[in-house]
Amino acid sequence: MALKRVLCIGAGLIGGSMGLALSRRMPHLELDAVEVDAAYREQAMTLSAFRHLWHAVESAPADYDLAVLAVPVEAAIQLLPRLRGKAHWVMDVCSVKRPVVEAMDRLLAGTRAVPSHPMAGKAQGGPLAADEALFEGRPWIFLKTHRPPGEIEDLVVRLGARVVYVDDADEHDRRMAEVSHGIHLASQCAALAGQTDPAMLAEVAGPAFWDVTRLAASPSEFWIQTLEANRDHVIAWLAQFEAAARAFRTALERKDTAGVQILLEEARRRRERAEAARTKK
Amino acid sequence: MALKRVLCIGAGLIGGSMGLALSRRMPHLELDAVEVDAAYREQAMTLSAFRHLWHAVESAPADYDLAVLAVPVEAAIQLLPRLRGKAHWVMDVCSVKRPVVEAMDRLLAGTRAVPSHPMAGKAQGGPLAADEALFEGRPWIFLKTHRPPGEIEDLVVRLGARVVYVDDADEHDRRMAEVSHGIHLASQCAALAGQTDPAMLAEVAGPAFWDVTRLAASPSEFWIQTLEANRDHVIAWLAQFEAAARAFRTALERKDTAGVQILLEEARRRRERAEAARTKK
Repeated sequence: MALKRVLCIGAGLIGGSMGLALSRRMPHLELDAVEVDAAYREQAMTLSAFRHLWHAVESAPADYDLAVLAVPVEAAIQLLPRLRGKAHWVMDVCSVKRPVVEAMDRLLAGTRAVPSHPMAGKAQGGPLAADEALFEGRPWIFLKTHRPPGEIEDLVVRLGARVVYVDDADEHDRRMAEVSHGIHLASQCAALAGQTDPAMLAEVAGPAFWDVTRLAASPSEFWIQTLEANRDHVIAWLAQFEAAARAFRTALERKDTAGVQILLEEARRRRERAEAARTKK
Repeated sequence: MALKRVLCIGAGLIGGSMGLALSRRMPHLELDAVEVDAAYREQAMTLSAFRHLWHAVESAPADYDLAVLAVPVEAAIQLLPRLRGKAHWVMDVCSVKRPVVEAMDRLLAGTRAVPSHPMAGKAQGGPLAADEALFEGRPWIFLKTHRPPGEIEDLVVRLGARVVYVDDADEHDRRMAEVSHGIHLASQCAALAGQTDPAMLAEVAGPAFWDVTRLAASPSEFWIQTLEANRDHVIAWLAQFEAAARAFRTALERKDTAGVQILLEEARRRRERAEAARTKK
């Protein structure tokens, strides 16, 4: 089945960026969107990416080949029951998979569910931040338990993304705690620690400070939802992260130079192993 | 007194970069270097930045206007007694100031000491990594207790750096724990936490992971010296950093959404305050 009619539910940063890229690269697609926020809807109009911009899922017709849930995780789960029969395939793009997949398996009887997660984003959200190149070179994660049809893999490749499979929702969420959700908290903790007025730190800061604390500027609403949806894995990661900080502190307190060195070398080894795997691609 | 004769002690990344920039931008300077490492010395030759490259401080003549100690903090302290009378001014560029300033005040009787710290570096060290633009736009920190003469301020400005003053060595070291040394450890801890093979993390990692863990690839020798030289402030920073991680974990464990939000918002406020101060410049 070739994809002909696609509905983006949510025309914010992710939905808008998909709209921009698909409308230019797959012009034969009939591409619509649903956007419930009036201001976002007006902004999304200016993208000239969508044929119709519906106010609500119920306003859109029921014969799409693919509906893409491009909304935060809580909204995605709430919308699922209202999508039954709306589209042949339903794909989400949420940053946490287990609660979405559980809801999909329970609610989407007869509709084929494609849980997915593009590793792309920006500090700024909304349709005005949409960018045709947002997914270029980025991993787009699928689950081996819910393999998409070739047409959907093709669509993701046309967006410029790199298709990656992980075993299942839980495996996805654990890896996300380690490469994304925990990493965001590491950045937040680095911004929180210290007693000096940040304006005075800025006077003397080099790239290390700006790079490591960059993510602390992210909007908190998205992160609260994400952290709570992936609570167990994030808690486990944080416990290991605290243990690492404590190990450094204890080694310094004991003037245990060899201990500090072992920790630094182990961190370097892990980072270099990741870098080597990245470069090999 | 105009600077005419300058000696860089150490022709690695910092000394080599100063050499490249000064030899091109202040060609009237008579610029020499000391480099004890034979391989580094050969590499430094290829920079064509220095008139003479001495094997040891003792080989160099004794009538320099300025000697720049561009070596790690332990080596800098060991070299100080051997610099008496070697130059009118002695400036160091070490990343920790208190132990260097104590040694300067004790040992450099009759020689004018200029403790300083350029906020510039690279993961890769050595003369081959030297870069004329290394200091461009970067803070170059001096202490109000040891103000340099105008000629040295001018030299730093010619390197492209931005002159910044902090009150004293202790104030410098506390700020460095917060913008640099602690930040490096935050990056190390982020690389250490997690149980997944880093090669598998690389498959799904986005820019957040690569940016925040980037510093973990730094060479450990430099960092051991730096962390130990600034032990007290780094330990204090780590304790606050651990407390921040624990606060996030506890709030998540208690399903305390408001608590998570307060932490996220406080981190964002601090990061934005730093960013606003940076942009104002």
